Amino acid sequence: MKKVGVALLGLGTVGGGTYRILVNNHDAIKKNDGVDIEIRHILEKDISKAEKLGADVSIVGTDINAVINDPDTKIVAEFFGGIEPAKTFLIKCLLAGKSIVTANKELFSKHWPELEAAAKNGKAGLYFEASCVGGVPIIRTLTQSMQGNNINSLYGIVNGTTNYILSKMSDEGLEYADVLKEAQRLGYAEANPSADVDGFDSMYKLSILSSLAFRTKVPINQIYREGISNITKDDIKFGKELGYTLKLLAISKKVDGKIEARVHPTFIKNDHPLASVKGSFNGVFINGDNVGDIMLYGKGAGDLPTGSAIVSDIVFAANQSKPQYTSFKNTNDVSDKGFSKNFICKYFLRLTVVDQAGVLSKISSILAKNKVSVNLMQQKNKEDKALLIFLVHKTHEKDLQKAISEIEKLSCVDSVDSIIRVEE
Amino acid sequence: MKKVGVALLGLGTVGGGTYRILVNNHDAIKKNDGVDIEIRHILEKDISKAEKLGADVSIVGTDINAVINDPDTKIVAEFFGGIEPAKTFLIKCLLAGKSIVTANKELFSKHWPELEAAAKNGKAGLYFEASCVGGVPIIRTLTQSMQGNNINSLYGIVNGTTNYILSKMSDEGLEYADVLKEAQRLGYAEANPSADVDGFDSMYKLSILSSLAFRTKVPINQIYREGISNITKDDIKFGKELGYTLKLLAISKKVDGKIEARVHPTFIKNDHPLASVKGSFNGVFINGDNVGDIMLYGKGAGDLPTGSAIVSDIVFAANQSKPQYTSFKNTNDVSDKGFSKNFICKYFLRLTVVDQAGVLSKISSILAKNKVSVNLMQQKNKEDKALLIFLVHKTHEKDLQKAISEIEKLSCVDSVDSIIRVEE
Repeated sequence: MKKVGVALLGLGTVGGGTYRILVNNHDAIKKNDGVDIEIRHILEKDISKAEKLGADVSIVGTDINAVINDPDTKIVAEFFGGIEPAKTFLIKCLLAGKSIVTANKELFSKHWPELEAAAKNGKAGLYFEASCVGGVPIIRTLTQSMQGNNINSLYGIVNGTTNYILSKMSDEGLEYADVLKEAQRLGYAEANPSADVDGFDSMYKLSILSSLAFRTKVPINQIYREGISNITKDDIKFGKELGYTLKLLAISKKVDGKIEARVHPTFIKNDHPLASVKGSFNGVFINGDNVGDIMLYGKGAGDLPTGSAIVSDIVFAANQSKPQYTSFKNTNDVSDKGFSKNFICKYFLRLTVVDQAGVLSKISSILAKNKVSVNLMQQKNKEDKALLIFLVHKTHEKDLQKAISEIEKLSCVDSVDSIIRVEE
Repeated sequence: MKKVGVALLGLGTVGGGTYRILVNNHDAIKKNDGVDIEIRHILEKDISKAEKLGADVSIVGTDINAVINDPDTKIVAEFFGGIEPAKTFLIKCLLAGKSIVTANKELFSKHWPELEAAAKNGKAGLYFEASCVGGVPIIRTLTQSMQGNNINSLYGIVNGTTNYILSKMSDEGLEYADVLKEAQRLGYAEANPSADVDGFDSMYKLSILSSLAFRTKVPINQIYREGISNITKDDIKFGKELGYTLKLLAISKKVDGKIEARVHPTFIKNDHPLASVKGSFNGVFINGDNVGDIMLYGKGAGDLPTGSAIVSDIVFAANQSKPQYTSFKNTNDVSDKGFSKNFICKYFLRLTVVDQAGVLSKISSILAKNKVSVNLMQQKNKEDKALLIFLVHKTHEKDLQKAISEIEKLSCVDSVDSIIRVEE
């Protein structure tokens, strides 16, 4: 029987969940997977967290060297989050030959090359299934199940907080600020919600997933990012009337040999499978040239779902005969050449205009001049103004932005209220 | 670089797809996964199939001994389907130390114990990702990503042919026989469609998946099976009116420590994610005690989707340091004790009755006497008769069947037309 010593760095939400799974499932894992996991160290300042879990407090400490100097600790699972001290600690562990299991998407998306260099140096492994889409086995799918495919695209809902907010806005017709407040009260959103609502968390995950999918590093600075804080209940309502559901999507595609990667609010058809991914659930589509579309769905966060991915990685790591590294040049210093930001999308536009004849004709002519072709136009009254909604056919980002900047200058246009991409 | 010799047994649909992927993706697999795959043997009587694919005809033959006696052939991928000669050939290959990759769900669900015994004997591996849900990585998920979970249930759409038929009946209001004929014409259904429409294919897959999920053998004779050939367009229409979509589901659950495993037409809520799984797509939910619900979705069949799973298994097998075997007692000779067939379900019932006062009261009293509680009743006219539709609350299978047999005896009841389970 393989005996594997593990250290847990941090006993927060996911650290605590992992501890509970390792203890409760210890015997089952031993029987089913042939791995006898022993928790040998816990790094945690707040000893009461360990006490609450019923952990042996004699293994709880604050000194990473106790972990590094223990030859029987083979795997280190990190739950600090953020860059430091996680980065320094993990590099030390890797150099000491200890494999790393982590859910830290920010660290991984920003410093993967340095972590991998340390891993190679220490002949240790890097496992990060838990960093993306919680308990859903998306990393394992990309690395262990798609070997017969060139991946064309990857897109989905990878952040539960924003999906909860958008689902609630949609189902109950509420405004963003009110739902955010409620989500914060319930603990679904942080006091400072920016990492989620501004799309940073989705961007980190998209960077990791796209790099694995396209086997080339997709650094975060190559990803277009737009959050959900400007979305109004009216956008959602008008979209619904046209048959669309609004989601914050992380999208990456290969188009003409270039990668386009973006995070933004997106209208999808009501009968698209992602439209029924609600609340804190996540869902991701992967399109391979041979397998076609596959989709993975599940809880994207939480102590036990993410702990499940951590434990899966610990068992997987313990059963690997040799550590695996990326087969592409893993560096953040990539050329802009491989990436495109001139996306081709359909768009939903909402404008407030003066309610008089000739306005539509002026706007239409600007759109046409910029090669933006209108699919559908709706006019609604809004007090003494008119509200115009356009759905436009696929167009280049640059053409649309140019058209919008010209439309904004029209004296008959009060405001361009919403520009929302549509994917079908 | 690891060089791996492969033999392909059969060049039918999936065999041909696998050949094409191995050739087209040879260099990518070499670069990305460090495996240089060489096709060394093809077993195929019809040499024109090999010629059409542009294969080297000098490696095409009909003698399994050429494969067995070649020390450089390490992995054998089987595409014959059915029991023989696949079983005899694969056991010979396993005993000769060659790992097996297969999509053969019938063979696997019926003879897994013998195959595994031969594998252990020959120190070879058994890989069967392609046997269930085509290109969707469900086996890898169950074996490599759920180690931190006890699995509570597994259910989904695992047969594309029946899903195509039911989707088309639902979307276009057609009768079963007409859609089946069309599906046969298009090649989506076999000339003898029984394996699909009578639920055998789903049963084979459920046996394999449930065994892995519950880590105990779930033989096919412990699985309740009911096909779709008695479904009418009226059932689908009336279900729709009540907010339900009809799917052929494969379901297995642990209930009070016993496994219940069943394949039958099932009404699910219209907004259930499986309701939007249409046409030839498959979708499966797995519920683990820690990860909660996860769902996998994709094409369940076809040359390239299933070929993708075969190639993934070949690469996976090539990279394993030692073959893995099931950790449970893998035998078809299991006791009935671990299984239950007295399912607890909601039901949709459709009856044709004489249109007169007092009928409903008679039926209701029989249902009540048998502890079957009515959730909803609808009456519709049907020429000079009345049509009654009941939705009943969760009830034991045995109680419902007893009630039905009593209702059928009532002189005011012409016929019990449909008994369809409802899962929510």
